[in-house]
Amino acid sequence: MAKKIGKQTIIMEKPPVLLSSATVAGPKEGMGPLAGDFDLIYEDLTIDEKSFEKAEVKMLLDAFQLAVKKASLSLQDIDFLIAGDLLNQIIASGFAAREMALPFWGLYGACSSLGESLSLASLIIEGGSGKNILIGTSSHNCTAERQFRYPTEYGAQRAATAQWTVTGAGAAVVAKEGDGPYITTLTVGIIKDFGLKDLNDLGSAMAPAAASTIEAHFKETGRKPSDYDLIVTGDLGQVGKMMLLELMQETGYAFGDNYTDCGLLIYYPHQKVDAGGSGCACSSLVTLGHLLKKVRSHEIKRLLLVPTGALHSPTSYQQQESIPGIAHAVLIESKL
Amino acid sequence: MAKKIGKQTIIMEKPPVLLSSATVAGPKEGMGPLAGDFDLIYEDLTIDEKSFEKAEVKMLLDAFQLAVKKASLSLQDIDFLIAGDLLNQIIASGFAAREMALPFWGLYGACSSLGESLSLASLIIEGGSGKNILIGTSSHNCTAERQFRYPTEYGAQRAATAQWTVTGAGAAVVAKEGDGPYITTLTVGIIKDFGLKDLNDLGSAMAPAAASTIEAHFKETGRKPSDYDLIVTGDLGQVGKMMLLELMQETGYAFGDNYTDCGLLIYYPHQKVDAGGSGCACSSLVTLGHLLKKVRSHEIKRLLLVPTGALHSPTSYQQQESIPGIAHAVLIESKL
Repeated sequence: MAKKIGKQTIIMEKPPVLLSSATVAGPKEGMGPLAGDFDLIYEDLTIDEKSFEKAEVKMLLDAFQLAVKKASLSLQDIDFLIAGDLLNQIIASGFAAREMALPFWGLYGACSSLGESLSLASLIIEGGSGKNILIGTSSHNCTAERQFRYPTEYGAQRAATAQWTVTGAGAAVVAKEGDGPYITTLTVGIIKDFGLKDLNDLGSAMAPAAASTIEAHFKETGRKPSDYDLIVTGDLGQVGKMMLLELMQETGYAFGDNYTDCGLLIYYPHQKVDAGGSGCACSSLVTLGHLLKKVRSHEIKRLLLVPTGALHSPTSYQQQESIPGIAHAVLIESKL
Repeated sequence: MAKKIGKQTIIMEKPPVLLSSATVAGPKEGMGPLAGDFDLIYEDLTIDEKSFEKAEVKMLLDAFQLAVKKASLSLQDIDFLIAGDLLNQIIASGFAAREMALPFWGLYGACSSLGESLSLASLIIEGGSGKNILIGTSSHNCTAERQFRYPTEYGAQRAATAQWTVTGAGAAVVAKEGDGPYITTLTVGIIKDFGLKDLNDLGSAMAPAAASTIEAHFKETGRKPSDYDLIVTGDLGQVGKMMLLELMQETGYAFGDNYTDCGLLIYYPHQKVDAGGSGCACSSLVTLGHLLKKVRSHEIKRLLLVPTGALHSPTSYQQQESIPGIAHAVLIESKL
């Protein structure tokens, strides 16, 4: 049985295991510094599908299937599927889940989806309902840009604070038993909204949520930033990262040099992504592809993963609402 | 600890309690046959808000606050909030959750959201992580129609198979302990898609998913339809109901007269809703407002609630995809 301590944090009694993870990347991500860590790289954005949306479905489906295979499991061994993405009515997840034919829960947490899906899977495993839960998230530059901003074909000029939505998908098997990194602690996010409204600076809109969740994590666990080898946020990018560093100073839990953001790891500076990467696939590719390898090799012993999400929609923006942010922290440890 | 039996079904070891439920209805719903069962009825569709979307947020927020109050709890007693709705990026849930300031998980299951949120809340309670989880769902005729079909102001002619999206919101407190109906068994849905593409006949698109989940429920529990006082689907409407009755005949678990659909209970025939009600609020208003009263009074001892969802989007429709359906079954019992 899991145990809740404080308002937001849950300690796993028998920590679930990340039995496997799989990542599928798009062409730009496949030319980035982490390319060697991805299981599959597609060299074009459509993958011979008739639309970008169908290409996103294909990537997520690939990631699901690869994760199951890498766990040496068959589909019959998977109890539930939990997935989410950025698209209206999460059609990437829904249509990929249709092909998987597994009992399915869809979620929406924008780019915090990796944190939300790992959290829910861990809690359900702890509750005894199943041995293996498959989770996954995806994003696609061309599906997200045309839904949230402009179709990429318009060639609209990008702001320096803007981030680049990552094309890719990640999946993982969260299991009751087996070898792999452990999910030991969760801190569930509370929505924070500082009144920001700039769709070209989502990093700043999400940073307060990241600060809130990370502060709660340290307060409620009695730990401090230096207790972890790495603290990594999902997709704050360069601008949001600077804001988070300032906010953490104010909380009394200032970071040392053991903090970074997935959006700053996934591309080379010369790839022209302005403030960094974003999208559900940003934290998925970096964490499930790159960082978990370091946890598995014990190079990183304690990784605090904090995927961040902006919970606005084009409609809420048009109605002059500000951008609410959320962040979920998941503590991943190489051994117990 | 919960126990999984078969591929889709979970039996609760210590069944969580529906400590309270609250419902907020729009004007048309407030003139329907169940009006006396709703906690709050708004007489206009905008509720003095500047947009229909903001009105939907207001209704969901009302439902959250009423459910907490009716459970004789304060916000400090609520461990987590789980909510979902039909809007792009679930902004009704996200913006209502922003005001609640509780640890929050957003979900997307279209009109199956009530089933999904009750399921996840039950599993988390069973896992030991918290005592009280607040869940909620909402829909609004004018936000849904303009997003999925046409703005209502266009006056587009409706098809006879079309359903009427319910305006309203429902919330409930799922608790570890206390008095109230019990959630004893869950059957998690697998997506079913018969290739239907008619946005004006979602009932038929969802009926196969309802049949699949209900068949799995009976197979895996070893029970039969007559073991329950009432089996109620979410929003199949008249057309989907007829299809489900036929499909259940084929499964060998034919229904007696203890089956109905929430979409057929919420309006009077003279209210011109064609095939019936639909939307997340359809099953929420009918179940959380009307049917739970009968469970609390032991008039209904065993209620199999099966909210149904259509997992398409306008984009997937335009790309000529068919409409995938999902349904989650939740068994609610008046005593153990």
